[in-house]
Amino acid sequence: MLNEKMLQLGTQRSVIRELFEFGKLRAAEIGAENVFDFSIGNPSVCAPESVTKTALKLLQEQNPVTLHGYTSAQGDATARTMIADSLNKRFQTNFTANNLYLTVGAAAALCCCFHGLGNPGDEFIVFAPYFPEYKVFIEGAGAKMVLIPADTEAFQIDFKTLESAITKKTKGVIVNSPNNPSGVVYSEETIKKLATLLKQKSEEYGEPIYLISDEPYREITFDGTVVPFLPHYYDNTLICYSWSKSLSLPGERMGYVLVPDCVQDARLVYSAIAGAGRSLGYVCAPSLFQHICAACANDTADISIYETNKNLLLKSLRQMGYHVVEPNGTFYMFPRTLIPDDIAFCEKAKDFNLLVVPGTGFGAPGHMRISYCVPTERIERSLSAFEALANFYR
Amino acid sequence: MLNEKMLQLGTQRSVIRELFEFGKLRAAEIGAENVFDFSIGNPSVCAPESVTKTALKLLQEQNPVTLHGYTSAQGDATARTMIADSLNKRFQTNFTANNLYLTVGAAAALCCCFHGLGNPGDEFIVFAPYFPEYKVFIEGAGAKMVLIPADTEAFQIDFKTLESAITKKTKGVIVNSPNNPSGVVYSEETIKKLATLLKQKSEEYGEPIYLISDEPYREITFDGTVVPFLPHYYDNTLICYSWSKSLSLPGERMGYVLVPDCVQDARLVYSAIAGAGRSLGYVCAPSLFQHICAACANDTADISIYETNKNLLLKSLRQMGYHVVEPNGTFYMFPRTLIPDDIAFCEKAKDFNLLVVPGTGFGAPGHMRISYCVPTERIERSLSAFEALANFYR
Repeated sequence: MLNEKMLQLGTQRSVIRELFEFGKLRAAEIGAENVFDFSIGNPSVCAPESVTKTALKLLQEQNPVTLHGYTSAQGDATARTMIADSLNKRFQTNFTANNLYLTVGAAAALCCCFHGLGNPGDEFIVFAPYFPEYKVFIEGAGAKMVLIPADTEAFQIDFKTLESAITKKTKGVIVNSPNNPSGVVYSEETIKKLATLLKQKSEEYGEPIYLISDEPYREITFDGTVVPFLPHYYDNTLICYSWSKSLSLPGERMGYVLVPDCVQDARLVYSAIAGAGRSLGYVCAPSLFQHICAACANDTADISIYETNKNLLLKSLRQMGYHVVEPNGTFYMFPRTLIPDDIAFCEKAKDFNLLVVPGTGFGAPGHMRISYCVPTERIERSLSAFEALANFYR
Repeated sequence: MLNEKMLQLGTQRSVIRELFEFGKLRAAEIGAENVFDFSIGNPSVCAPESVTKTALKLLQEQNPVTLHGYTSAQGDATARTMIADSLNKRFQTNFTANNLYLTVGAAAALCCCFHGLGNPGDEFIVFAPYFPEYKVFIEGAGAKMVLIPADTEAFQIDFKTLESAITKKTKGVIVNSPNNPSGVVYSEETIKKLATLLKQKSEEYGEPIYLISDEPYREITFDGTVVPFLPHYYDNTLICYSWSKSLSLPGERMGYVLVPDCVQDARLVYSAIAGAGRSLGYVCAPSLFQHICAACANDTADISIYETNKNLLLKSLRQMGYHVVEPNGTFYMFPRTLIPDDIAFCEKAKDFNLLVVPGTGFGAPGHMRISYCVPTERIERSLSAFEALANFYR
């Protein structure tokens, strides 16, 4: 008998995958240019030139034995120092290499946190709408995900429900701001209230409640929106980062966990995370890209297209009567569907060759996720389809 | 409370790491050239030129969005086809892309197998001497490692003990040939006996017992030794491979699980492994190196130095009176220590500036592992130290 849970995870076909397959079939029928695929969160802009330049330079000048060799499990010390320096410059902090544990992307960073912190029966709180793999990762660590329903007015936090959900079993709270799928950034007010509540509850239960910040979209913000840097607000913060989106390197799997010194028993927390990495088979993060991401830590891809796309799509959808909370970042928005049944709505959208993802999978029925990491021209051409879809329900 | 097990894994300092630190201190005192460090299994030869050339070409010619983008979870289809073709050419097989699941190195491949196949209470059998992380990975999957003591005469398999260790709880048997730490390759006779026994026991218990072959050293063999290709001998074989040693890319974390069609319920097994990869946070193997390893799948680094080193060291140690089973591959040998207490022996060796790893950690006390992936000149200069150490015990 195979492991049933793993078998299920391996055979479940994701909604996004199904859409992708549908899109391919449809493209063969009516031409790719007539299928408006907004289903996938794959960056559509090139990695910055500095990435390619750094890669070429390293490959041409460095000794391959060192360049491609094992680094220490937590990552190359020089690379970690460069990344810490970049954070210090941007956030007025004093991190060193010792605060950083480099990981094979943000998914690995999250898994290391859940496995390192969690004991059987522990709970991690997640806010809808949420990235659905959180559940897979949390349950993989033998812990339980507790979901707080979405604040559908502003996609901030419903504090009343949160407060009642925190118990002595609560090991951590996961935030993802800028958020996939809503695109919303938690305001400073939200963060301050969250910090106050978590401090109070940690004291009440006599154990730290960790704030785990999953922030691969940190650099992708609009109209100068500032994303509060959470360690400034709450001591027991762990940051899970990835260069997938900011440097457009999703396939290269480079990220980190940041464990600030202000975390209670910071060195032990760091060790537990490293122990989890070891147990999960993560020997080290890919060595060439450790050096590349460290060298390019102050750069981003040309992410301005995401704001162009957001502005065009937001204005147009609102004019058509769609209700959309304005995204402050990422390359997603999360409008309400025009009928409560988001799955039926997204199915109907396919008749208009619009591929959008039902909100149900993100824990927020009655919405759809639109990924606008696409050529602007695709958005322009899709507008009549969104209009026709709206007309269908009028 | 943190997860105690992960904390322990993260704080345990490995024997090899301790030796490494000692070596650094000693080098500062007496000069690096006078410290004979044989503790680390890091390839000492460059990746082949084809790796650098392929990397440069891809970086210069390919669209970065595709090159660094997510691949499907099982790996890029073209890359998998190229790897399957390389295997087919070398082993007269008919694999396709569908038989390969690309992983973040062999450690990830093993973890995906243990998590995908294992249920709580299941047992995986391991033969001493063994790579100690097997225990960490197996226990991480909630299963139990059952250790078969070493056949210290030839480092083949003690079949009597194996037979009595197989029960209805046995989910799999792990082999690692060429072997770390002994360097020995299992003979065809051993493989045939193993296959016969596993077939018989699988039938007896009505469930397949998987043969999990961890073979990162497959290409590093001496004197034309042939490593039997296990799917030719046993249907329920899963191969865990890595390019760490053959292409000298240990830091880049590229490997695969091969699930041949002859495995019972092969597609389900493949799905369970993929589900485990998902649960553990492995989104995909690093994309650039998927393409590089696929393009260089028929190449190896210049591994001839390992044979030169083996010959020199084997002859010299035997002349000094050390008992050494001749390695057929890898870059390790595993001589008997001159006293039964291998830990005391390796501690004493440090007085002669010889850094070798006690066999106890590999499940075979009374031995030491010598990693000869070092410049040949280091071996030449170390011989008088090995001699002095032997004299001390004479």
